[in-house]
Amino acid sequence: MDIREQSLKEHYKWKGKIEVVSRVQVNNREDLSLAYTPGVAEPCLEIQKDYYKSFELTRRSNLVAVITDGTAVLGLGDIGPEAGMPVMEGKCALFKEFADVDAFPLCLRTKDVDELVRTIYLISGSFGGINLEDISAPRCFEVEQKLKELCDIPVFHDDQHGTAIVVAAALINALKMVQKDMDTIKVVINGAGSAGIAIAKHLLNLGLKNLTLVDRFGIICDGMKELNSAQADLAKLTNLTHQHGTLADALKDADAFIGVSAPGVVTTDMIKSMASQAIIFAMANPTPEIMPDIAKAAGAYVVGTGRSDFPNQINNVLAFPGIFRGALDCRATTINEEMKVAASYAIANLVSEEELTTDYILPNAFDKRIGKAVAKSVSDAAHATGVARI
Amino acid sequence: MDIREQSLKEHYKWKGKIEVVSRVQVNNREDLSLAYTPGVAEPCLEIQKDYYKSFELTRRSNLVAVITDGTAVLGLGDIGPEAGMPVMEGKCALFKEFADVDAFPLCLRTKDVDELVRTIYLISGSFGGINLEDISAPRCFEVEQKLKELCDIPVFHDDQHGTAIVVAAALINALKMVQKDMDTIKVVINGAGSAGIAIAKHLLNLGLKNLTLVDRFGIICDGMKELNSAQADLAKLTNLTHQHGTLADALKDADAFIGVSAPGVVTTDMIKSMASQAIIFAMANPTPEIMPDIAKAAGAYVVGTGRSDFPNQINNVLAFPGIFRGALDCRATTINEEMKVAASYAIANLVSEEELTTDYILPNAFDKRIGKAVAKSVSDAAHATGVARI
Repeated sequence: MDIREQSLKEHYKWKGKIEVVSRVQVNNREDLSLAYTPGVAEPCLEIQKDYYKSFELTRRSNLVAVITDGTAVLGLGDIGPEAGMPVMEGKCALFKEFADVDAFPLCLRTKDVDELVRTIYLISGSFGGINLEDISAPRCFEVEQKLKELCDIPVFHDDQHGTAIVVAAALINALKMVQKDMDTIKVVINGAGSAGIAIAKHLLNLGLKNLTLVDRFGIICDGMKELNSAQADLAKLTNLTHQHGTLADALKDADAFIGVSAPGVVTTDMIKSMASQAIIFAMANPTPEIMPDIAKAAGAYVVGTGRSDFPNQINNVLAFPGIFRGALDCRATTINEEMKVAASYAIANLVSEEELTTDYILPNAFDKRIGKAVAKSVSDAAHATGVARI
Repeated sequence: MDIREQSLKEHYKWKGKIEVVSRVQVNNREDLSLAYTPGVAEPCLEIQKDYYKSFELTRRSNLVAVITDGTAVLGLGDIGPEAGMPVMEGKCALFKEFADVDAFPLCLRTKDVDELVRTIYLISGSFGGINLEDISAPRCFEVEQKLKELCDIPVFHDDQHGTAIVVAAALINALKMVQKDMDTIKVVINGAGSAGIAIAKHLLNLGLKNLTLVDRFGIICDGMKELNSAQADLAKLTNLTHQHGTLADALKDADAFIGVSAPGVVTTDMIKSMASQAIIFAMANPTPEIMPDIAKAAGAYVVGTGRSDFPNQINNVLAFPGIFRGALDCRATTINEEMKVAASYAIANLVSEEELTTDYILPNAFDKRIGKAVAKSVSDAAHATGVARI
């Protein structure tokens, strides 16, 4: 039985991967009068007097909503809100298992940007954070931006930022191995969707200067009419030589390739045209842009993929549990760029320079230190940038 | 320390009364690939093919949303959405403890009827049922009615129907004691808000013919200009003699008084003017319309209140856990009148005729049989009326 059949079978047995349990005993009238009426009137009135008490007197302080509209679920595309829920529940299970964050899955029956924003804003008083998930580009950019302006709690689109944070951690460590510096290397990102855009922005925040984005229509160049607004904004900060052409053209002399695109689009000739000790993160799922053995045979030095059956898995689970743990711990009002940068370094630093090999540039997903280390760095960065409430 | 101070202290310790936990182990790469990617793609695709699989492959089948806008919280009034959350969490804890229903609390930052309806509809694919809570009248009627038309899962405003179901159970048993029949007694309900309206409708469904509703402006009579639309509808079915006057006028020769109104509004003279063996349910909280000892001294035969420190507590917890348990068990599309009537009889029948006394007309809230008995009756009624999916 393959993994997908087996997973389906397990899902029928599990009857849901999350559960809502009570933290209080209700065995007698006194219990009832403390947890419910009439006693409960008092915490209600405390919150009415001081809104921020809602973070102390309800579960809000540890609760994250994992929200999708079902339009970009895994590589399956627009499968509908309810069909996205097994992924949302899985993510919630990981939040709890990896960082003791209570996460609750919600799917929304609309694709309209303003309606998504309004709906999520209206329920936001029930949570300490909002994790957006599997919402298609370019709508996801606008949904997140508008929510960040409206909400007084962190809003984080994991497909963008979680991926970007882990890719950056991998690149930081790969660069240590090849002894190159972020500010002098040339990086090519193939796929300018939500993940590609976010990776680009995050690497620029980490000091990258020479970056080229490529999409189906070729190298992204300032002024091209095919671009959506997120791509157009980035076109001003990337491909500063205004190169036109294909992915093959972009990859000549590049130090690193980051693929969030489609199976098999990178050839051995492309790898051979890259700079020496090339770094390849081929994250198309389930089939990478180029298979690791082929890339290595063509001269690549470090290869990472999205898959768990090859070395160097670039997996969001390294980031999102600890990021929200850190944001919740300090009751951050937002997750800003400094917090994301801190998360990338925290993940990278869990592999010491002595431990680093071409097959071990990222910590193992089940390394118990990760959640705490990321949370600490994120919380410290929140304090340093004035967005922590406690 | 009084109960409210003690409750506040406990709430600071509890840090939330509910918690979201994982039902799956995620200890290694195989676990991860079954509960999350890549395995999770398969249950997603199954739901895409057949929407109803969402009730089998996610937690939806056992999940109820407990939703408020914070406008009518306990007796505290419009205290705001976040301030209502300790009550919602308490209710969720009771759902789990009394009927193993996973319930999740949500507060909505709007009071607009259409926006409440749209928001709840948009998230409804995440749940197996919707429990509306502490939404002020008359908006609550419209919110519930519109949602019932839109949603393919049960929508139930507990302040209305939960209260009505338990009051009816109490009245059924009290009538056994005084050997009177539902279709010949005269009942007066004081307070024509959400609970009063729902109690009236439910008792009419149970066969009551002679019912008078009273509100601040006096006896409700067909054609009065003070009535909201819910009251106007009921005015056509009640007070068939078109009596005008006060609560005192209404209570003359009445067999039962049901108060969902204000402290102390019933006098001993009013009780004395009632029919022999009068039944008094004085549910104003925390101070009843008349205190039980005073009512009894004036001739009342059975007295119930909303309080746990007097006999015959009329408490919604007797109803809502089992009602949703029953509706979820058979995947009902709605909670209809027949299911509510069945719930009242199920609760009443848990006190046998031999056990009945004037101080014991309802089962004890902690009687473990209640949830199951109510669920069974509700599920049977759902099957009998064709609203059960399984």
